[in-house]
Amino acid sequence: MLRPAAAVALVIALSGSGWAARQAPPPAVTIPASIDARKDAYAAIAKQIWDHAELGFQEEQSSALLQSTLAGAGFSVTRGVAGMPTAFVASYGSGTPVVAIIGEFDALPGMSQAAGVAIRQPLTAGAAGHGCGHNLLGTASAAAAIAAKEWLARAGRPGTLRYYGTPAEEGGGGKVYMVLAGLFADVDAVVGWHPSDRNSADAASTLANIGATFRFSGAASHAAAAPDKGRSALDGLEAFDYMLNLMREHVPQETRIHYVIKKGGVASNIVPDAAEGEYQARHPDMRVLQSIWDRILKAAEGAALGTGTRVEHQVTMSYWNVLPNETLAAVQHRNLVKVGGVNYSAEEQAFADAIRATLISPAAPMGSQSGVQPLRSGAVGAASTDLGDISWNVPTVEMDAATFVPGVPAHSWQAVACAGSSIGIKGMIVAAKTMALTAVELYGDPAIIVAAKAEFSKRRGGDGFTYATLAPPKPPLDYRK
Amino acid sequence: MLRPAAAVALVIALSGSGWAARQAPPPAVTIPASIDARKDAYAAIAKQIWDHAELGFQEEQSSALLQSTLAGAGFSVTRGVAGMPTAFVASYGSGTPVVAIIGEFDALPGMSQAAGVAIRQPLTAGAAGHGCGHNLLGTASAAAAIAAKEWLARAGRPGTLRYYGTPAEEGGGGKVYMVLAGLFADVDAVVGWHPSDRNSADAASTLANIGATFRFSGAASHAAAAPDKGRSALDGLEAFDYMLNLMREHVPQETRIHYVIKKGGVASNIVPDAAEGEYQARHPDMRVLQSIWDRILKAAEGAALGTGTRVEHQVTMSYWNVLPNETLAAVQHRNLVKVGGVNYSAEEQAFADAIRATLISPAAPMGSQSGVQPLRSGAVGAASTDLGDISWNVPTVEMDAATFVPGVPAHSWQAVACAGSSIGIKGMIVAAKTMALTAVELYGDPAIIVAAKAEFSKRRGGDGFTYATLAPPKPPLDYRK
Amino acid sequence: MLRPAAAVALVIALSGSGWAARQAPPPAVTIPASIDARKDAYAAIAKQIWDHAELGFQEEQSSALLQSTLAGAGFSVTRGVAGMPTAFVASYGSGTPVVAIIGEFDALPGMSQAAGVAIRQPLTAGAAGHGCGHNLLGTASAAAAIAAKEWLARAGRPGTLRYYGTPAEEGGGGKVYMVLAGLFADVDAVVGWHPSDRNSADAASTLANIGATFRFSGAASHAAAAPDKGRSALDGLEAFDYMLNLMREHVPQETRIHYVIKKGGVASNIVPDAAEGEYQARHPDMRVLQSIWDRILKAAEGAALGTGTRVEHQVTMSYWNVLPNETLAAVQHRNLVKVGGVNYSAEEQAFADAIRATLISPAAPMGSQSGVQPLRSGAVGAASTDLGDISWNVPTVEMDAATFVPGVPAHSWQAVACAGSSIGIKGMIVAAKTMALTAVELYGDPAIIVAAKAEFSKRRGGDGFTYATLAPPKPPLDYRK
Amino acid sequence: MLRPAAAVALVIALSGSGWAARQAPPPAVTIPASIDARKDAYAAIAKQIWDHAELGFQEEQSSALLQSTLAGAGFSVTRGVAGMPTAFVASYGSGTPVVAIIGEFDALPGMSQAAGVAIRQPLTAGAAGHGCGHNLLGTASAAAAIAAKEWLARAGRPGTLRYYGTPAEEGGGGKVYMVLAGLFADVDAVVGWHPSDRNSADAASTLANIGATFRFSGAASHAAAAPDKGRSALDGLEAFDYMLNLMREHVPQETRIHYVIKKGGVASNIVPDAAEGEYQARHPDMRVLQSIWDRILKAAEGAALGTGTRVEHQVTMSYWNVLPNETLAAVQHRNLVKVGGVNYSAEEQAFADAIRATLISPAAPMGSQSGVQPLRSGAVGAASTDLGDISWNVPTVEMDAATFVPGVPAHSWQAVACAGSSIGIKGMIVAAKTMALTAVELYGDPAIIVAAKAEFSKRRGGDGFTYATLAPPKPPLDYRK
Repeated sequence: MLRPAAAVALVIALSGSGWAARQAPPPAVTIPASIDARKDAYAAIAKQIWDHAELGFQEEQSSALLQSTLAGAGFSVTRGVAGMPTAFVASYGSGTPVVAIIGEFDALPGMSQAAGVAIRQPLTAGAAGHGCGHNLLGTASAAAAIAAKEWLARAGRPGTLRYYGTPAEEGGGGKVYMVLAGLFADVDAVVGWHPSDRNSADAASTLANIGATFRFSGAASHAAAAPDKGRSALDGLEAFDYMLNLMREHVPQETRIHYVIKKGGVASNIVPDAAEGEYQARHPDMRVLQSIWDRILKAAEGAALGTGTRVEHQVTMSYWNVLPNETLAAVQHRNLVKVGGVNYSAEEQAFADAIRATLISPAAPMGSQSGVQPLRSGAVGAASTDLGDISWNVPTVEMDAATFVPGVPAHSWQAVACAGSSIGIKGMIVAAKTMALTAVELYGDPAIIVAAKAEFSKRRGGDGFTYATLAPPKPPLDYRK
Repeated sequence: MLRPAAAVALVIALSGSGWAARQAPPPAVTIPASIDARKDAYAAIAKQIWDHAELGFQEEQSSALLQSTLAGAGFSVTRGVAGMPTAFVASYGSGTPVVAIIGEFDALPGMSQAAGVAIRQPLTAGAAGHGCGHNLLGTASAAAAIAAKEWLARAGRPGTLRYYGTPAEEGGGGKVYMVLAGLFADVDAVVGWHPSDRNSADAASTLANIGATFRFSGAASHAAAAPDKGRSALDGLEAFDYMLNLMREHVPQETRIHYVIKKGGVASNIVPDAAEGEYQARHPDMRVLQSIWDRILKAAEGAALGTGTRVEHQVTMSYWNVLPNETLAAVQHRNLVKVGGVNYSAEEQAFADAIRATLISPAAPMGSQSGVQPLRSGAVGAASTDLGDISWNVPTVEMDAATFVPGVPAHSWQAVACAGSSIGIKGMIVAAKTMALTAVELYGDPAIIVAAKAEFSKRRGGDGFTYATLAPPKPPLDYRK
Repeated sequence: MLRPAAAVALVIALSGSGWAARQAPPPAVTIPASIDARKDAYAAIAKQIWDHAELGFQEEQSSALLQSTLAGAGFSVTRGVAGMPTAFVASYGSGTPVVAIIGEFDALPGMSQAAGVAIRQPLTAGAAGHGCGHNLLGTASAAAAIAAKEWLARAGRPGTLRYYGTPAEEGGGGKVYMVLAGLFADVDAVVGWHPSDRNSADAASTLANIGATFRFSGAASHAAAAPDKGRSALDGLEAFDYMLNLMREHVPQETRIHYVIKKGGVASNIVPDAAEGEYQARHPDMRVLQSIWDRILKAAEGAALGTGTRVEHQVTMSYWNVLPNETLAAVQHRNLVKVGGVNYSAEEQAFADAIRATLISPAAPMGSQSGVQPLRSGAVGAASTDLGDISWNVPTVEMDAATFVPGVPAHSWQAVACAGSSIGIKGMIVAAKTMALTAVELYGDPAIIVAAKAEFSKRRGGDGFTYATLAPPKPPLDYRK
Repeated sequence: MLRPAAAVALVIALSGSGWAARQAPPPAVTIPASIDARKDAYAAIAKQIWDHAELGFQEEQSSALLQSTLAGAGFSVTRGVAGMPTAFVASYGSGTPVVAIIGEFDALPGMSQAAGVAIRQPLTAGAAGHGCGHNLLGTASAAAAIAAKEWLARAGRPGTLRYYGTPAEEGGGGKVYMVLAGLFADVDAVVGWHPSDRNSADAASTLANIGATFRFSGAASHAAAAPDKGRSALDGLEAFDYMLNLMREHVPQETRIHYVIKKGGVASNIVPDAAEGEYQARHPDMRVLQSIWDRILKAAEGAALGTGTRVEHQVTMSYWNVLPNETLAAVQHRNLVKVGGVNYSAEEQAFADAIRATLISPAAPMGSQSGVQPLRSGAVGAASTDLGDISWNVPTVEMDAATFVPGVPAHSWQAVACAGSSIGIKGMIVAAKTMALTAVELYGDPAIIVAAKAEFSKRRGGDGFTYATLAPPKPPLDYRK
């Protein structure tokens, strides 16, 4: 067992108002050194959020902790933005450029797991856990913001720095509503990161993703005495599935359509009058996906029509693919190389080896955490994120840092174990330093933003582009309840 | 091999104008004796129609032969009625009651078979054949009409006798159009029969039957290079089938839904842009069937909607279930018992034994052809006939006579072989005598028709009933072309 | 609200040892009068079991209450027979004939409902309730047994009387295991009843019924990143369903196949590695059903083979259709007519009217509870019962008594409300009297059993018959846990 | 209308024995000039084969014409090789290196079309046509072989030159059987080409392709009278299709699975006892495809098992993906650039414009036929060819020449129209010159073959590779009959 990262005493200090002022680094200190100086405090914050493990839109404590940290460092905080109690914006400075750093902090259901332990061992069976490392995500972004704010203060330059506390990345789509509320309207560039099993800063994209619940209703009847009087809602749902499977041949091969059945009838002697499934469709381009989605809706209607049932659906997620920005990626990658990767202590290495032993064919080789991947362009990851929606509204760059043992996938118990350990903290610090350096470079060199915006405009397809989303008009605040 | 029934010389005589006058039986002759006297001539007519083996709406020679036979016997013939060139009405007498005898004469595609031979041996490969014995059907009805006409003439009573030459029973539905044209509006009772492997005169019903061709259209595309550009018409058709199979649970258990795929794409490397199937649905009650049919249409629409294809359908057949009439059945059964069954010669018995050896588990026992089945009520046969449409407009009675060796099913090569042999002729004569006796009894005892009409009215459900059909508005004259 | 049936004080007396001796009726008292004399005590027992509402194989209190009642009346009780803790046999007398009366006492999950109330009003949300009236069933049978025992004692005749306490009729199939354990080997006739909305004693049958859980397993995989690595267990299950729906066309039309999906995947972004459904098949003849079941198993295997998944199934229920016995039915019907139906008080009538108002198109007319249905033969009900398994081993007769308001179906909240009210008690008393009279007649007239056995033997198909069951070899004692 | 290419008189000369000797070019003539000198003769041969339009394995006249042309030019011809009457090998010279040039000459069913006409106009409705330009293919290869042979003769170098006349590329797979017969065992390099709408010589691959006919058999039965006695073969086939559609999610996204139904029952009132479909599966790597094919076979077995039917299949095609060779492609591309593209006359341009007007969104721009595409590597075309099987046994290079108007796809009537016009001839001459130059370079520079073989060995994966095919053991000589 690895010693979990924790420094409870420091947290209290960090969280207190005026903390940044008291612990401010001397002017001569570099950005990496400034972050290293507060590493234990950040580790303690990350561990507290890991302990809270709060689900999307319910991240009261996690959000409050990050808010107080930023407020204590001199940011002015507005909470409850865009109709979401746990969303907030922390701002410093004024004028342009406006640079935004993104923080997430929601956990995943059912992923409770002891930290720093190389076997599956839930802390509380069925409870939530940080399987995507968002405890690190929000904290590193706060650390980066604080370091960049200090630089801005020292430099005496104009410029606005904002930290966006974005809830419910794992399904609720907090960023979508912050975009819709206009909170990104004046932002010039967005800097973000994500926990990973490697260090990289590609101009990569993700899959656009639309998810929905489809509910079929029919007429119940005794399945032996009067099946002709019944109309099976499950028939409707299975006919829908059937036509979706036929559709696979007739969509671009990069498309993904997947589903599960959540309600398929109560008892086998009753014709089911209600059936329900969760469906997702993905494609590298949201505009293509929206046209596929239209066909999916028609398949549902056709299934209901053909089986004498009714169908209704509720979109639960609509995430655009990330629009990459090579201009910003080049800057971030350069800074990542400068910061370098993660080096394990002997104890950490032993833990990492034990974790590796639980993985099936891990792709990334052991040791790769200490290096930085070469800069690539054009890749499309299989994941989806609501950062995508921001990226079609503001030039956006995202990087990965090696918070997980090489080969550990997100949404695994191994990821939870790493996210709560000193390995996770080390990766978090890499991210914090890199993002801070990137933000500072954006303030220092206005030409970068000009170039990034030009690339952004071209990639979006010029002035004709209008952002639109299939997400529900109001945040689904109870989607995890 | 059995000697086929044939007497060509006699046919010419029979067909000639004035024939009936020349060969009229002396007044004292009974109806059975009158028919027996012309047995060879009727056998020759039946054999000629068997030789013609003309498909539905193409029965020019068969229809003409029956017309000339009836005209020669003193009937006045109107041909080409109800928009069908081969449909005709032959009429004798005047006033009421108006009794109709029904004649059919169409063959089945692909059923060519040598007569009186107990092995599968087509005369012309792929050609048509009388697998349902309609060569006997039309002839026996003509024989019955001629005998009844003679009785009417001798008796000097009022009354009208009509022979309805009804084409295309095997799918086109000639009777439906004769009903729609009002040709049965003044008829008091309808008498008919059908070739079978037994002698019976039940008050039985049939299954109502709706058939249609469904055609799906999509968009062709190279199945390897651009399947996403294609919309498979076969997907539409298979989704339709899928939903029909789901529907089976939710219709009354007596329902039948069956289909074949006639076009399912041209080459496997092209996404099919056209697909076509033949579908049928049946139920003991046409009104229930029509509501099921509505659901089938919705399944087709739903399949098209859900697969991005289009669908159109064309009803090819809509036959009501036969509305039985116990009053008339009792009369016909009494006469059938009087007439008796069919007795085989030694040669015929040898042929029958050879035919039996080709059957799998024949239901009716050998020898049953010589007896008459007891009168039953309430039975529903699996077959369908356009006589059903008449039966909801006029009180109708139908009987079976043993023209086929016991156990031989209709639409089999064995049935063709029997229908062209002396065994078929013997059964035909049984039917002719029984129907003639029944017609004569209707003229003689007006109370029978009164009772039959009362029963008819009650069974239809009173005055609220309105006959309606899903058949195409015009006869599908080219449905066998 | 109707006053619920209850008489707690009396119950204690009834349950006490020696009760029967103390309360024994004078010799001259008739059987109906004997039962009427203890009506309140029986009502209290029925209400207690209604309150317990214990699920199959968990009927500890209900079984114990009936055991002590019978023991108190002079029966010798063996509990925990055939490997089932709540199964018992209570016996009295010796020698032949051996007559068995059947008692059931298990409740249904999720059917909790207030008694005597005409609106849906659970006592405890989600708790069990007596939706099939088995609280009345077991009690009436005990009442009948006690009355018949008294007669036997008074009459001084040889003869054995047994009460079979049969648990878990609603799925576990307690009777099947009692049959397999040989507990019915020496029984000459079985007498039973069931709560209903009418009074009848037909020689009716039921549908044989086989139920099973089918579990498909596949390989989980991220549905967007690596769907080709996954094998969807839900694919297997849906392919199984598809082939079952195709099979509907190719089984006898009386067959029923129905299913629900209980597990259809966890999250839509993971290829499901487990899927599970509950399936049932029914047919009027278990031997036909077993051959259909073989085909269902092949459909499951085929679905697994074709989708790269695995399948296993567990039979949860295998109930033979009831083999009717007209000889015994005639006796029981005669006695039912003698006993007569149920007459409602004004208060009960008001409750019944209120219940009727909640029903959609009730079949039985209000008032029919006071009469007795004519004796019919050949009917097949849509229900299924493990009494069927007894009926193929011993001549068996079952009757219905009107414990529910006319039109109330079993397994409804209305049935629970009635089963706990005075209306239910009145129907229970009708059943008790009729069964007691029938049992006594069997002792009194040996020819009845001889005739019943002859009919039984003929109906089973002679000596060649061997009883076999697909039920699991041991009672599924935890099937409701 | 464009003047079709034809020069009948010359053909006779060309076909005569001794023709090459009489018409041999003077030593100083270059290869391109040598081919130009006989352009009209080659045009005539190509037109004759276009006129024959013979289907796979039936190319008697086309094969004979090419054989006599090569024999006349001094090649020694062996006909009927590898068990295929229309396959042949024409050989010249001796020793190494052994260079093979590939010729095809089969037509496509149903593609009859007038030459040089810009509207769909079959010469004979339903007849075959050269929709893939194989009339040009075989002729250009012969022209290249003759020119290279002359060079070899003049140069006095060792070396063997072979022309492989390979029948039935459109499905029968003649090359597969020539490989299996060991006819390529001693070949050092293979040079080929294909008609196209552009000039290119990429190191491109194709999709491996396995095709088969699947036949399901069941039991016929009257669909209304006894559907339970039937087992629908169409059920089996549709269940197979269903599971294939489910499989789409669980194969690599580059996979293609496509099918058509060729027999789906005879008449809708008979349960189909036979059903048949044509199926294909493709993937960029045959070894992956073979494992997918195993799963497809299991889906068929599962469908049969689950529907009570039987299934058998017959592989009709098994083509490996082409193993590209960059070494050889670089040589061929260099020569193609040297030769240059196709220039249209005014008349040809007018025809080309008219053809363009019939195309939907043509990809290649008009005018591109006069240039040469840049050399690319790594592309995978959607087509499939039995050249793939050769390419895994011998280093192989293939090029495209612009015989079709830019934008015209293969297997279209427009391709037939072009293949029979002077535009097709011009592209054919480009190919002939390029291949001849390439062959000559292989004789002249042994290092090329050494390098090509090294690349070949590496791409195949070293010594462990063993070629295997799912093709039927004997050539399906009647696959187009």
